[in-house]
Amino acid sequence: MSTLFLRTLREDPADAEVPSHKLMVRGGYVRRAAPGVYTWMPLGKIVLDNVAGVIREEMNRIGGQEVLLPALLPREYYDASGRWTEYGDTIFRLKDRKGADYLLGPTHEELFTLLVKGEYSSYKDFPVILYQIQEKFRDEARPRAGVLRGREFHMKDSYSFDIDDDGLQRSYDLHRSAYIRAFDRLGLRYVIVSAMSGAMGGSASEEFLAETPTGEDTFVRSTESDYAANVEAVRTPAPPALPIEGQPQAQVHHTPDTPTIETLVDFFNAAGLGRTFTAADTLKNVLVKTRAPGAADWEVMGIGLPGDREVDMKRLEAVLHPSEVALLDEADFAANPFLVKGYVGPNALLHNKLRYYVDPRVVEGTAWITGADKADHHVMNLVCGRDFVPDGTIEAAEVREGDPSPDGRGTLYTARGIEIGHIFQLGRKFANAFELDALGPDGKPRRVTMGSYGIGVSRVVAAIVEQSHDDKGIVWPREIAPADVHVVGTGKGEQNEVALRIAGELEARGVRVLVDDRKGVSPGVKFTDAELLGVPTALIVGKGLDQGVVELRDRATGERAEIPLEAAVERVAAAVAGG
Amino acid sequence: MSTLFLRTLREDPADAEVPSHKLMVRGGYVRRAAPGVYTWMPLGKIVLDNVAGVIREEMNRIGGQEVLLPALLPREYYDASGRWTEYGDTIFRLKDRKGADYLLGPTHEELFTLLVKGEYSSYKDFPVILYQIQEKFRDEARPRAGVLRGREFHMKDSYSFDIDDDGLQRSYDLHRSAYIRAFDRLGLRYVIVSAMSGAMGGSASEEFLAETPTGEDTFVRSTESDYAANVEAVRTPAPPALPIEGQPQAQVHHTPDTPTIETLVDFFNAAGLGRTFTAADTLKNVLVKTRAPGAADWEVMGIGLPGDREVDMKRLEAVLHPSEVALLDEADFAANPFLVKGYVGPNALLHNKLRYYVDPRVVEGTAWITGADKADHHVMNLVCGRDFVPDGTIEAAEVREGDPSPDGRGTLYTARGIEIGHIFQLGRKFANAFELDALGPDGKPRRVTMGSYGIGVSRVVAAIVEQSHDDKGIVWPREIAPADVHVVGTGKGEQNEVALRIAGELEARGVRVLVDDRKGVSPGVKFTDAELLGVPTALIVGKGLDQGVVELRDRATGERAEIPLEAAVERVAAAVAGG
Repeated sequence: MSTLFLRTLREDPADAEVPSHKLMVRGGYVRRAAPGVYTWMPLGKIVLDNVAGVIREEMNRIGGQEVLLPALLPREYYDASGRWTEYGDTIFRLKDRKGADYLLGPTHEELFTLLVKGEYSSYKDFPVILYQIQEKFRDEARPRAGVLRGREFHMKDSYSFDIDDDGLQRSYDLHRSAYIRAFDRLGLRYVIVSAMSGAMGGSASEEFLAETPTGEDTFVRSTESDYAANVEAVRTPAPPALPIEGQPQAQVHHTPDTPTIETLVDFFNAAGLGRTFTAADTLKNVLVKTRAPGAADWEVMGIGLPGDREVDMKRLEAVLHPSEVALLDEADFAANPFLVKGYVGPNALLHNKLRYYVDPRVVEGTAWITGADKADHHVMNLVCGRDFVPDGTIEAAEVREGDPSPDGRGTLYTARGIEIGHIFQLGRKFANAFELDALGPDGKPRRVTMGSYGIGVSRVVAAIVEQSHDDKGIVWPREIAPADVHVVGTGKGEQNEVALRIAGELEARGVRVLVDDRKGVSPGVKFTDAELLGVPTALIVGKGLDQGVVELRDRATGERAEIPLEAAVERVAAAVAGG
Repeated sequence: MSTLFLRTLREDPADAEVPSHKLMVRGGYVRRAAPGVYTWMPLGKIVLDNVAGVIREEMNRIGGQEVLLPALLPREYYDASGRWTEYGDTIFRLKDRKGADYLLGPTHEELFTLLVKGEYSSYKDFPVILYQIQEKFRDEARPRAGVLRGREFHMKDSYSFDIDDDGLQRSYDLHRSAYIRAFDRLGLRYVIVSAMSGAMGGSASEEFLAETPTGEDTFVRSTESDYAANVEAVRTPAPPALPIEGQPQAQVHHTPDTPTIETLVDFFNAAGLGRTFTAADTLKNVLVKTRAPGAADWEVMGIGLPGDREVDMKRLEAVLHPSEVALLDEADFAANPFLVKGYVGPNALLHNKLRYYVDPRVVEGTAWITGADKADHHVMNLVCGRDFVPDGTIEAAEVREGDPSPDGRGTLYTARGIEIGHIFQLGRKFANAFELDALGPDGKPRRVTMGSYGIGVSRVVAAIVEQSHDDKGIVWPREIAPADVHVVGTGKGEQNEVALRIAGELEARGVRVLVDDRKGVSPGVKFTDAELLGVPTALIVGKGLDQGVVELRDRATGERAEIPLEAAVERVAAAVAGG
């Protein structure tokens, strides 16, 4: 440490909110170069490489083959897949000196598809899993939390290519197992949640979320099973349909002064109808408009959901992706005069050929109080399947704590996490875009099916710190720590020389050593730095040296033990080996 | 190889001119993603990592500390150093979603200077050497030759920081020694040449050029010493000055019909002046205009050189860098009517306050035939130092084979090479731009002095192939080869199984193995692929297997030896160990 390019800080950086950001900056692991763009300092580079090394080993174990693609990618391939448009502002775009359009790769589905198309042509060539560990670029609207959400970041991305769906499932399962092994080795606490696909447009998809209260992602878990899902991926259980026969006729009521669900419910409860209503008996119809990527026109649609629920725009956007969603403005109402604001019912939409989707709880035979498509009027006993037939169901309603778990066991509660990995059955989207076929045994071409799988390598480093720190600093799991042991020499005698000698002996035995041989730095500062840096084991060569004693410290447990100097190398080696 | 993502090609790629480009594509080491932008395939990635590993070890040996900076860099720092403008079209520029300007790092002097400024403040902190191995981006006007001159490429760049010139010299010498060790280990034949600084603007600078006839860089060497220099860096030895006294007066001659140096010389030789003239007796005055970066106006200057020499625009541009250079157009002549086209002499320039520089051979006391600043007239016996006094000397004349070596020993001849490394004493240019100071022992700030040092990692891979191949393929030096041994199973018996078994035994001994276990591929194709791929040692498990015999082949020498099957593992291990 007398020559290491490292200066620790006592103060948290002004822009830091989460522990990993504060501690990685204070410990000199990273430095900010621009918003969302970071430099990895010497110790940080070691940690980053260690994390990448674990991931690389687990990818190799499942037969992944490492390649390295460029970051600078020509627009044409992303035009072919549609992602040049879909990505919107989230990709960095640039022109070369000839004016040709390029982007900085956010992920590389297009290039990998073309790469395989260039080399492979027969079903015998498959399956293949290719991966890279590389810098990625995304122009995040709100880069935050240090390397947790950066604009330039390190990622392991892999892609599987199979000739049939069973093969894709095997490649997906292999990745799932590799991710479990890697994240276990990295000492992370995580859950695997069902996920929506985001910009990828495929089917089966799971996210690995490191559990932390500072996580950006909200997910739900069951109180009684291991069900866990991204909020966007929660499937609302539909209640059983009810018989339509025997239900009373729909009745239109004049309902003045009922601007809210609450006042509407009160009105009906005060109307002497012989029963009590709640908000869940009303059918709220929310109007939005959507536009497909590249389309010129917006299309209005209605969403019907129980009046005690709000639309969750994130869930709605996920369902409709890649289309955009917006609320209606005055011009939209003017263009659709049959939509009576505040009194919209299903039939105004359905009779005018606008799409109308309902929450899965709105099943056949359910009866509702809803708008009568006429100012100051609502209709009661409007029965789904009799008085209106929706175009389908949609997962747009908010998910609430206490909702039944979709697997039928327990109820849901919410937790927060950091997305550290994502596995995803892409299917044939990119193979279709680039006509990636393999000749089958029958001599006929088969369209290849793909998976894509990512781990945010730099984000994993931060997630580990989020989960593994205390008020004094970082507590690294040994496998990715910047060193196995931090040998600290303190005192005015020959402590530094002894520390360096022990360090040399440990290195000769293959132990990775950080040695604090700084002169003119107080013991207190050295101990504080050691705790901040978070190396799992510390060996203090201090004032006990005169009595032939040194001190062994465990960063995680805080345990301290005085040991004879001559036993130091053995004891450290044993601690490093997990003894 | 039955599952390796590799397909070799029999034909050279259409766009390939040099051997490394042809062989790296044919051998499946790289694939083109865009002009000057390449993907490293599985075997290529191994070779690239091996080269980077050697360089990393040698950088660590001189105390270099590895960090990792981003590629995406904010404009402001490059504005501060002036390089945002200086780089012209050669950098990739982009805007983020907020419209802020960024560039993709071509080298990182600015960021490293700021990084050190952020951490260090005392003379006791220095020296420090920091390095990274990272993707770099340059928008080359003519990307060519595969990864030899790419637009996205891998580079080791390091930066030294010292508080005085002696320290800088030590850091420079350390790098020089590290580069020599690294390039020696990489098996490269190279020369170290004096170099101009290019866009860096400093002083001492040397280039490491891998000698190959296909190299882009021309350099000169001495027939009798180890002098070697970039053509831009050759310093013309000045002859001794001559006495002015006693020289005849300058005489103006009417010289009709002498549009060329040749006709001019003929005219004077035919004029009965009692002596014979050659082109070297005439003083050719070449007019150019220059413009400093960011300046609005061009400035005309004249360059006087012996009439038997041409101006070498590359040398002139190097001398005047970062200013631009262009030839005069009609408008320039119109604006300077004293410049009589074809008859420009030194005095038209000097008397009109235009700069006039001469070749170092134009020393005091030399007498010249040159333009008389009047149509159809030349002047003879115009003596330098008497009849005109130039503003200084300039290295703009072409360097020719046979010119005396600047070190006084032998004459120069030209050779070609690939720039694989560059070491450079930057001095205080960047420290000045960012006010990087260290408090000295006297409590006064000292400006830090810097060096910058680069190795083109991906280019080194190609340079090795340029130097180490034959008509059948690549011949990798062992240290960077994708494998130590290529075990080839051929035949209809159990050759593949035996090959796989031997491969397993070799791997258990730490030997890196590539095994060709492909079925239904002929022996000829397998042998051809092995030679193309270029692994140093091959072990053929073929038709001799029935007699218990396998064949050991050395890729470099072509030697073949039949050996007993049971000795195969030992013999291969011995060959790998250099036995």
